[in-house]
Amino acid sequence: MITVLSGGVGAARLLRVLRQHVEPASLRAVVNVGDDLVMHGLTICPDLDTITYTVTGRNNETLGWGLAGETWRVRDQLAALGGEAWFSLGDLDLATHLYRSQRLAHGATKTEVAAELGAKLGLDIALLPVSDDPVATMFDTEIGPLSFQEYFVKHHHGVRVEALHFAGAEHASLTPGVVSALTEAERIIIAPSNPLISIGPMLAIPGLRPLLSERRNDVVAVSPIINGAALKGPADRLLAEQGFAVSCVGVAQYYQGLIGTLVIDEIDAHLADDVRATGCDVRISPTIMGAPESDLALAKAVLG
Amino acid sequence: MITVLSGGVGAARLLRVLRQHVEPASLRAVVNVGDDLVMHGLTICPDLDTITYTVTGRNNETLGWGLAGETWRVRDQLAALGGEAWFSLGDLDLATHLYRSQRLAHGATKTEVAAELGAKLGLDIALLPVSDDPVATMFDTEIGPLSFQEYFVKHHHGVRVEALHFAGAEHASLTPGVVSALTEAERIIIAPSNPLISIGPMLAIPGLRPLLSERRNDVVAVSPIINGAALKGPADRLLAEQGFAVSCVGVAQYYQGLIGTLVIDEIDAHLADDVRATGCDVRISPTIMGAPESDLALAKAVLG
Repeated sequence: MITVLSGGVGAARLLRVLRQHVEPASLRAVVNVGDDLVMHGLTICPDLDTITYTVTGRNNETLGWGLAGETWRVRDQLAALGGEAWFSLGDLDLATHLYRSQRLAHGATKTEVAAELGAKLGLDIALLPVSDDPVATMFDTEIGPLSFQEYFVKHHHGVRVEALHFAGAEHASLTPGVVSALTEAERIIIAPSNPLISIGPMLAIPGLRPLLSERRNDVVAVSPIINGAALKGPADRLLAEQGFAVSCVGVAQYYQGLIGTLVIDEIDAHLADDVRATGCDVRISPTIMGAPESDLALAKAVLG
Repeated sequence: MITVLSGGVGAARLLRVLRQHVEPASLRAVVNVGDDLVMHGLTICPDLDTITYTVTGRNNETLGWGLAGETWRVRDQLAALGGEAWFSLGDLDLATHLYRSQRLAHGATKTEVAAELGAKLGLDIALLPVSDDPVATMFDTEIGPLSFQEYFVKHHHGVRVEALHFAGAEHASLTPGVVSALTEAERIIIAPSNPLISIGPMLAIPGLRPLLSERRNDVVAVSPIINGAALKGPADRLLAEQGFAVSCVGVAQYYQGLIGTLVIDEIDAHLADDVRATGCDVRISPTIMGAPESDLALAKAVLG
């Protein structure tokens, strides 16, 4: 069994790669819920949905998020009504949120709903929300406190962040399935997701850090910072704002004590010793996914 | 000022007719909320929306409900996911529910939301939910208890109803605007809506019956039963199941003590004396709307 601590896009891509190199049934994604939100009465779980859509080949490659073949009838009408349309909800994507919201209202857990949606869409890996309890990533910024989606979508992660909070995390529990996935896995992989806001909310839930540190020799992280920059999103700026080096070294610092190995990109090979100095091993590999050879190399690096 | 106690389709049509014969600004619709429901996390107010859509000319004439030009991307995807798609939500209509749900979540009242949506869509009559408190019409049926939409949409009002309840009504309050609309109106009209399930939930709210009976000389109802049948919906069967005559006489019995006048269709002219025997005056008029001459005659009957 292979367990992958997952945010959204970067994790979804890694899972899609890994699925080609190990039995899908042996793959478990433990997924961040800190981006989840209730909007217009609907419970929206961006990371869970991104993984489901991407691993089943339904992701919208043009947009970089959401579903292929998406349309915008509802959003356009909502904008015409003067509603809050900045968080663009596609018509197909909305059906996911309606389904989830109705099932949650009827007493299902996020874990159950994720399994139901996955089964319906043909997902063949296990998708495990890290917790069924609410955890909300909150940003203290130069313009005041913002929720995750306000920071990320409404303000295009363009404001300076002074502090991060994971509201609810201290009272949240890992689900039993997540605990099993972390204790029974041969290998635990931390996906190249944003350490601070995709992996961080999970690390703030009591019990996860000890589980990782006990198993740190089996924990391999992939650096999402390549040549001093994030491929996507604000991980680079957030690392700087939170006092970490803006490089794979900063990622190693952030995960210090939790990982046995950090996979860094070939372009960052010269930083290997600095990474090792944080107390973990280093593997050097291509880390930008998309081409078969480099995907294979990355899969070997995290699995080998 | 003219105030119309309103359910959905029949009331919306009457309001559209009246709007051509009196100043729109003088028209107030006091609207049933007993059909309102929360589905998929969304607060849906069918009667309020039917009136807004119909009076602004946006109603879907082909379907008989919903919006013109409607599409079904979300519903079809929801069905593909195995979700509860029996309550067909169109894409354009969904935007209304998203707007309302978000505004309610932010603390707005149904009254405020109805006004906002009306203003945005160009509604020029006042739309007043009878209450901002929850009232839910519930059916005890031969197959067990059903909510309004389960009875009406899921089971196509095809099961026998043993009893009706208006959950929450006894603790609900008329809004101040509704009380004004009823005390200040020159004429109060009860639309040709289903007496038991469109007008009944409003009558169950404390204060409405006394307001009507005090002003009964100014209260004119339009019978929704024509020649022993409802033009639309289950009003005829429900009257029978609840022990009323299935005719305009049964309608007069249901409104006994609350109305000064009942407008009955020409085809029911022979029942005029039986209606008068319940204690109200009778006006005979065409009551099926759609043709200019009969619409004018009906407007005169209710306003004159």
